[in-house]
Amino acid sequence: MIQLIGFDGDDTLWHSEGYYQSAHAAFEAIVGSYVDLADAGLHDRLLETERRNLRLFGYGAKGMTLSMLEAAYAVTQGRISSADMHRIVELGKEVMAHPVELLPGIREAVQAVAHHYPIVLITKGDLFHQEIKVAGSGLADLFRRIEIVSEKDARAYARVLGEFGLEPSNFAMVGNSVRSDIEPVVRLGGWGVHMPYHVTWAHELENGMEAGHESRVIRIDSPSSIPKALAALQARAQAPLTGRE
Amino acid sequence: MIQLIGFDGDDTLWHSEGYYQSAHAAFEAIVGSYVDLADAGLHDRLLETERRNLRLFGYGAKGMTLSMLEAAYAVTQGRISSADMHRIVELGKEVMAHPVELLPGIREAVQAVAHHYPIVLITKGDLFHQEIKVAGSGLADLFRRIEIVSEKDARAYARVLGEFGLEPSNFAMVGNSVRSDIEPVVRLGGWGVHMPYHVTWAHELENGMEAGHESRVIRIDSPSSIPKALAALQARAQAPLTGRE
Repeated sequence: MIQLIGFDGDDTLWHSEGYYQSAHAAFEAIVGSYVDLADAGLHDRLLETERRNLRLFGYGAKGMTLSMLEAAYAVTQGRISSADMHRIVELGKEVMAHPVELLPGIREAVQAVAHHYPIVLITKGDLFHQEIKVAGSGLADLFRRIEIVSEKDARAYARVLGEFGLEPSNFAMVGNSVRSDIEPVVRLGGWGVHMPYHVTWAHELENGMEAGHESRVIRIDSPSSIPKALAALQARAQAPLTGRE
Repeated sequence: MIQLIGFDGDDTLWHSEGYYQSAHAAFEAIVGSYVDLADAGLHDRLLETERRNLRLFGYGAKGMTLSMLEAAYAVTQGRISSADMHRIVELGKEVMAHPVELLPGIREAVQAVAHHYPIVLITKGDLFHQEIKVAGSGLADLFRRIEIVSEKDARAYARVLGEFGLEPSNFAMVGNSVRSDIEPVVRLGGWGVHMPYHVTWAHELENGMEAGHESRVIRIDSPSSIPKALAALQARAQAPLTGRE
């Protein structure tokens, strides 16, 4: 049976990707004054730069900013002005300083789940920026534990579950990213509540689910459905052989 | 009695500050081609920029790089070229990519301590960069737990000790920084082995020790002295009233 519920942070508890996409739009406007964006393939060049730098920077706004500077310099072949380089630094700082805005209804949903289960927050990204967001969310006290990891893969989830002495089958994760929140948990043998956000970073769109795992995931479209989805997964977890009887 | 030993990472297990200081020297050479460094007070301006940005960036090479870009643009009043801004980005990437070089004798010292006590690694800074260094150190398996925190203050140490169910008096920390490794632990009631590194970031030089805490700290000058220093602290911990009898 399910004994522990994990929540993702960015775009599950609070808005995040919108701030990154606004910064990307402003970045394209800056670089667009030097080159034809479509010809330069700026969007792909930036994503490629960010991905190449992930092994050095990890996730988060500081790494994004450094990748933007690198991509802008390369795409404009050095023609970009230092004033525009400086504006890109400022764009990054604005993403880091954005206010923490909870998704509508998420506070009530998290409180309702915390009434029945111990809950943990498992986020990835920049440690410092994530801690600021957790503190600003006003939800920190509801969580038994807050884990900020550099990559949300099966190994990271297995480590957290190990520290709680639980099997993956005792765990359900609630989040917006199939790649980071749902697929690795289900692959281990856990459960997932997938709540897509209205925009998703291209990097997070890569992974699909393996066939045969659908019954371990429920997709919902708003926070108010989280408690009911968990109750449905719990019923499946407690009667795993129903379908074969 | 002492039941758990904590180790700092940067400049305690592996060399770090030297890479930052090399990057600072290269940064000064770049900016020095635009302004008279002494007149511009570049060293102070950069430290001031880094400190102001700490609340947004936290510690680590990515934040340092962004602060360097900001300070260089301000100090040169925008006269810096975009090519030199790009060189500063590259300087930061070199710090992030530096190899992990252990201090001489530290492997043997950590192994010796791990033979007698459970040990934990408690480092601060950028989560991703720290994880890369821990992995590259070859020491990760010796540690019961690896905690990467955004600030090494009394609150962070109290939380880690709470998770182990220990009192501060059961804990000794080994590290190079009085501010981050020794003072907060001793203030809580723990013990410290202070092993100064040959260079220290100005920001870490701020804190002194409160009077009356000297007996809880032993200062050493090389890793080979760590086991003996811990044995001496253990003797003090087990006979706390000796001096008053």
